[in-house]
Amino acid sequence: MKTLFIGGIKSGKSRLAEAYIRSISQTKPVYLATTEFIDEEMAQKIDAHKKMREENFITVEEALYLKEKIALQKGAVLVECLSMWINNMLYYEKSFDEMEAELASVLQLEQDIVFVLNDVGCGIIPENKLAREFVDISGRLSQFVASQCDEVYHVIAGMSTKIK
Amino acid sequence: MKTLFIGGIKSGKSRLAEAYIRSISQTKPVYLATTEFIDEEMAQKIDAHKKMREENFITVEEALYLKEKIALQKGAVLVECLSMWINNMLYYEKSFDEMEAELASVLQLEQDIVFVLNDVGCGIIPENKLAREFVDISGRLSQFVASQCDEVYHVIAGMSTKIK
Amino acid sequence: MKTLFIGGIKSGKSRLAEAYIRSISQTKPVYLATTEFIDEEMAQKIDAHKKMREENFITVEEALYLKEKIALQKGAVLVECLSMWINNMLYYEKSFDEMEAELASVLQLEQDIVFVLNDVGCGIIPENKLAREFVDISGRLSQFVASQCDEVYHVIAGMSTKIK
Repeated sequence: MKTLFIGGIKSGKSRLAEAYIRSISQTKPVYLATTEFIDEEMAQKIDAHKKMREENFITVEEALYLKEKIALQKGAVLVECLSMWINNMLYYEKSFDEMEAELASVLQLEQDIVFVLNDVGCGIIPENKLAREFVDISGRLSQFVASQCDEVYHVIAGMSTKIK
Repeated sequence: MKTLFIGGIKSGKSRLAEAYIRSISQTKPVYLATTEFIDEEMAQKIDAHKKMREENFITVEEALYLKEKIALQKGAVLVECLSMWINNMLYYEKSFDEMEAELASVLQLEQDIVFVLNDVGCGIIPENKLAREFVDISGRLSQFVASQCDEVYHVIAGMSTKIK
Repeated sequence: MKTLFIGGIKSGKSRLAEAYIRSISQTKPVYLATTEFIDEEMAQKIDAHKKMREENFITVEEALYLKEKIALQKGAVLVECLSMWINNMLYYEKSFDEMEAELASVLQLEQDIVFVLNDVGCGIIPENKLAREFVDISGRLSQFVASQCDEVYHVIAGMSTKIK
């Protein structure tokens, strides 16, 4: 089973995705954090979050190679989040095709996987070229992942609506 | 009964919220305007809007202390809008916790209350720090208010969908 | 029958609108491109898109006078897209009232018409005055068109939800 939670910034999508994966998983699910540690302050924040999750999740970290990392895990995996992963992939100058190929191989894994993704496409077209590229790639990948998932949930104000 | 209407800029959320509160209220409902008057031109515009509403609403104004003001009213109150109120609270350097506490006490009032809120979280993360803070707080408060409301409506292109 | 597909950037709204109009049309539908050709590079891209569509659509082009152009067509017309048209109308200094009047006369035509529109109102209010004006007009026209359409579909991540 593959599931996508999509919603805006601070829409509650992560909280709902976490509750969801715990409800479908008989063992402690894996929390795959895609954040790259940029500075000491960020590292501390992430560490604090990780401690908070310890009771409910096994945390692993991977900024780029999702398929390889997920295949190593036993049980359900929460990918938190695809938007940060896209960001990382862009930083390392990966193309859209490389991202799509990586996600295609992730989606073929046997495990239950829950993806979290920011909906970034409902503002005006950004003036900044990199931001425009991010919005474009994020939208195209969201279509691809949603088309391959069994279920898609749209989250607004902490309320999820099943749209697939 | 507590109700939230959430939607983007010019999505029609205010018009739908106004029609809704009139439909559930047996007396003339109260229109609580959260706008602070900044200059003469703005004041004139607001005055014109107020005149237009006179037939259907009793207008009262309050930029910050919603609970105190709403408790004074008889009958149903439309809070128009929470986004402007968050803006005001940020301007007076109130914290997220203070805002949440204020809304928590509003939500405990006996009256029927309808809240209007801008959905601002579905664009890219703003470069401007204040804008980022606003988006963050707005999203977290929208989750809080929605969790406490009996009904939540999402509005797009003047069409409302009940999501709770 | 009049239909609106509304969704964010790269949400898949165009692809779904194209599939939809082909499903309701017994003859080859008309693809009304509202893009103005700005430079050679853009013109080449548009030409390539046009070639890709040739098998399934008759392409016509009109940047401003939709009613006149649509009335000349036989069969169903896909307006791709209203957002670009609003952009063009703003460029030629047309007012909101002129845009609404043009769309009102389009909506009175007998033909099946499918409109595609970008949802641009769910980010923060733009600092740029022109962008603010665009968001305002786009939202107000989306309400108007939706109110006059028989069906409205909201598209997220390539999934459409019927909201009217």
